[in-house]
Amino acid sequence: MIRVSVLYPMGEGKKFDAAYYMQKHMSLVRERLKGLGLVRAEVDKGVAGGAPGAPAPFVYIAHLYFNSIADFQKAMGAHGKEIMADVPNYTNIQPQVQVSEIAG
Amino acid sequence: MIRVSVLYPMGEGKKFDAAYYMQKHMSLVRERLKGLGLVRAEVDKGVAGGAPGAPAPFVYIAHLYFNSIADFQKAMGAHGKEIMADVPNYTNIQPQVQVSEIAG
Repeated sequence: MIRVSVLYPMGEGKKFDAAYYMQKHMSLVRERLKGLGLVRAEVDKGVAGGAPGAPAPFVYIAHLYFNSIADFQKAMGAHGKEIMADVPNYTNIQPQVQVSEIAG
Repeated sequence: MIRVSVLYPMGEGKKFDAAYYMQKHMSLVRERLKGLGLVRAEVDKGVAGGAPGAPAPFVYIAHLYFNSIADFQKAMGAHGKEIMADVPNYTNIQPQVQVSEIAG
């Protein structure tokens, strides 16, 4: 199983419209990718860092699960442009994208 | 549900002993925390970034699931020192720790 994590780092001057992200953007992601191998999608809301009182390094993280990298690439090939074009509608953060194998 | 993500950023001069991490460190984490509210633990192995040919931003990511932040804090209060003291045995990377609520 593949987990694709889309991470939005906190930072000075960064804006993030959580309502748009949860209601519009993630709905778009689920709708466009569910017929193309998306097994499920989860959203993490950052609440804290590791040290006492430390802020979360990431304001939000989305996790998208696919059975294979090929499935993910095919899905993004079909709809990646539309999905990425929606990002400026809710944030000025440049997301980090991590493609991982769930190894254990 | 709470997801605690422990992220190891890739970087110049960084070392990571994956065998030790998977076999020793994560076994220690599971053993120490399972009786203290750890619901499950998963390990992601980074394989790629978002852009074609881009490397994964993180070499490994561990995800630890707890029912509440209080459970996580109590577990780490009991065993955090021992767990963190084991980190230099497999890497010179300073991990980022993200505590998130699974929001959707």
